[in-house]
Amino acid sequence: MSTRAGIVVTGTEVLTGRVADRNGPWVADRLFELGVELAHITICGDRASDIEAQLRFLAAEGVDLIVTTGGLGPTADDMTVEIVARFCGRELVLDAELEARIAAVLKSLMARYTGVDFDAVRAANRKQAMVPVGAQVLDPVGTAPGVVVPGKPTVLVLPGPPWELQAMWPAAMASDAVQQAIVGRTIYHQDTVRMFGLAESGLAETLREAERVVPGFADLEITTCLRRGELEMVTRYEPRSAGAYRQLMAVVRDRHGALVFSEDGSLVDDLVARLLAGRRIATAESCTAGLLAARLTDIAGSSAYVAGGVVAYANEAKVDLLGVDAALIDAHGAVSQEVAKAMADGALRRFDADTAVAITGIAGPGGGTADKPVGTVWFCVKLAEGTTVIRSLRLPGQRSDIRDRSTTVAMHLLRRTLLGEFGALEA
Amino acid sequence: MSTRAGIVVTGTEVLTGRVADRNGPWVADRLFELGVELAHITICGDRASDIEAQLRFLAAEGVDLIVTTGGLGPTADDMTVEIVARFCGRELVLDAELEARIAAVLKSLMARYTGVDFDAVRAANRKQAMVPVGAQVLDPVGTAPGVVVPGKPTVLVLPGPPWELQAMWPAAMASDAVQQAIVGRTIYHQDTVRMFGLAESGLAETLREAERVVPGFADLEITTCLRRGELEMVTRYEPRSAGAYRQLMAVVRDRHGALVFSEDGSLVDDLVARLLAGRRIATAESCTAGLLAARLTDIAGSSAYVAGGVVAYANEAKVDLLGVDAALIDAHGAVSQEVAKAMADGALRRFDADTAVAITGIAGPGGGTADKPVGTVWFCVKLAEGTTVIRSLRLPGQRSDIRDRSTTVAMHLLRRTLLGEFGALEA
Repeated sequence: MSTRAGIVVTGTEVLTGRVADRNGPWVADRLFELGVELAHITICGDRASDIEAQLRFLAAEGVDLIVTTGGLGPTADDMTVEIVARFCGRELVLDAELEARIAAVLKSLMARYTGVDFDAVRAANRKQAMVPVGAQVLDPVGTAPGVVVPGKPTVLVLPGPPWELQAMWPAAMASDAVQQAIVGRTIYHQDTVRMFGLAESGLAETLREAERVVPGFADLEITTCLRRGELEMVTRYEPRSAGAYRQLMAVVRDRHGALVFSEDGSLVDDLVARLLAGRRIATAESCTAGLLAARLTDIAGSSAYVAGGVVAYANEAKVDLLGVDAALIDAHGAVSQEVAKAMADGALRRFDADTAVAITGIAGPGGGTADKPVGTVWFCVKLAEGTTVIRSLRLPGQRSDIRDRSTTVAMHLLRRTLLGEFGALEA
Repeated sequence: MSTRAGIVVTGTEVLTGRVADRNGPWVADRLFELGVELAHITICGDRASDIEAQLRFLAAEGVDLIVTTGGLGPTADDMTVEIVARFCGRELVLDAELEARIAAVLKSLMARYTGVDFDAVRAANRKQAMVPVGAQVLDPVGTAPGVVVPGKPTVLVLPGPPWELQAMWPAAMASDAVQQAIVGRTIYHQDTVRMFGLAESGLAETLREAERVVPGFADLEITTCLRRGELEMVTRYEPRSAGAYRQLMAVVRDRHGALVFSEDGSLVDDLVARLLAGRRIATAESCTAGLLAARLTDIAGSSAYVAGGVVAYANEAKVDLLGVDAALIDAHGAVSQEVAKAMADGALRRFDADTAVAITGIAGPGGGTADKPVGTVWFCVKLAEGTTVIRSLRLPGQRSDIRDRSTTVAMHLLRRTLLGEFGALEA
């Protein structure tokens, strides 16, 4: 791509890890869709000298566009506009009309809070109406306006709260200054392939073979990564390399066909959602304690097929709410094939569902034994039409990894079951 | 602080936002605990020139220690060690003994996967045994070893998978090279205060007052941020400024006492966990669909007081599993004070619990109406001893924000109820 960009994420709370940055990745996606190559994301605290150093670094790297996020609030540690103005050699001036608009927003906002004197708040927000001379103002979504400062590089200053930044993005992209900055962009293709059950090393070997047999392989920019337990291969290429990509995929399918579950960027969540259309699913969760139900309902419209679920954390809950036979738990333990199956049966029955998923395992750090170490998880997917699929795995990582990974395993087991990949007599 | 550090996060999957970086924030926390000031986190893709540019930038900024994460895998896009070696002007050599150790790890690992030829995998991993001359090797946790390259700056190269990086950290910190790099560090105090129900602007005004009345205020490095719906104030200061901090807190308590819920860094999750000791809690969730139960059980040992919960996404589930009167839903709608209360009643009863939390709301994007717009959420906390607390809010943001924010509101309502802040006749 001939147009490059950099993102400067400001905020001591982000730098120190107290708040996870959601803006860098989101802006990165938007830039890619535009055909703008993102070269760097830099994160620094609320320190003028560090923010300026990052702006200088990105300018020295020759980027055409710098997007900054955060530091537009009313507190003293919010200084991004001031620093960007200085970096761009422009004065700050008060935009009276903008100040009035911010005040209006605040009046309604203050209703939500207690213990705040409105005039004080308005004074605190006056600095948010100071804009660099010649910059284009982007209307505030919350109380903080954004600004676009034209130049080489052009600097786009956006607020920190993700929903404010995202709502402001279209106006920012529509601005003349941004349009001029990205005029040289070229659209690349990006194709994403997702695999489950394959080691990254196995794919690496396949790619080395492809390098030998696929003409034009060198023109494909391939990145692979493990993502929530799945293996993801993303390939970027110019339109002229479409043929090379097709041949690469032929090699990948030939080697790993059965493990490739998505070639169009769809997540397993999307695929499962489609397969659940017209069905009625219920969950029965122990160690994941609601994460699977929450994941299924992340998708808007999931109420059409999600009936609900039971978080049966205590054994009594498995018995009382899912009808698991207490004797089964005594005989085999709560983390067992038998209990997983009984939990799925109970979910089907109690929710009058036609599809059920049960998860019971040991997330740790405590509770592990020699024969059932931390990470041992049993899964059961059951369909009213008669299929029952049961699996167990020993998952690596910490408590949160094991819980999250369990939901991924369950989604894949659910997908394959709904696709009819298992016989009715699996269990 | 007299010792500064920078973090270089590598990985196109991170730069492009396909994978959220968990390492930067984690390493940032560890560095702070050590008294090392983190100046910059930079993120770039798997491109040699960009990685090198970031290393040069951090070196030019005069940091004493650079920590890199990622790019230690077997695939061609994993090139961090090679680039760091070049940056530090050191040759790469094969560590045969290390190669043997990696092979051993792989043999056991391969058991988990299908469709992989072990020798191919081992070949793919040979490059992971190439280390810079004079560098200290950090034993692999997964298959990738880390390295510490002494110098100014010293470069610590760590793997990308968070659990591998975290397990390797102690050995890295114990290495002579790292110890020498951070010898000049000075310990700062850091105190965190958390508030709920206060606007950032209100706190900003309070801080301006403190600036006038607190001697030595200028020596306090204060950052404030909104975090999952809470307002967080973090203050860093040298030991000699402890008095100034005490006076600052007197001002904050005087202005916002009732809204300050934590002064020792505890999260509301921790406070609720302590208050639940000896109790038995159950949840009844509609729009959050398990997120609250999952949040309560994020904490190891929560099985001592979490019985479980019902995700009652469909109305029939509210009736069948929680015993909500269908007529109540018809009369007031599923998102109503009456249904929230009935859900909490059902959770108490069905789980034989003494504490119950119910959440029912409209997460959107669809389902909103004029009188119940998207973001409308009803909460009910009920204690067996007789207290019932009911609240409703209209939460801002998108579906995921509304769902997450709802769990935060529920945690605070639960905390205040368990503290007895509400009368028995609240509802």
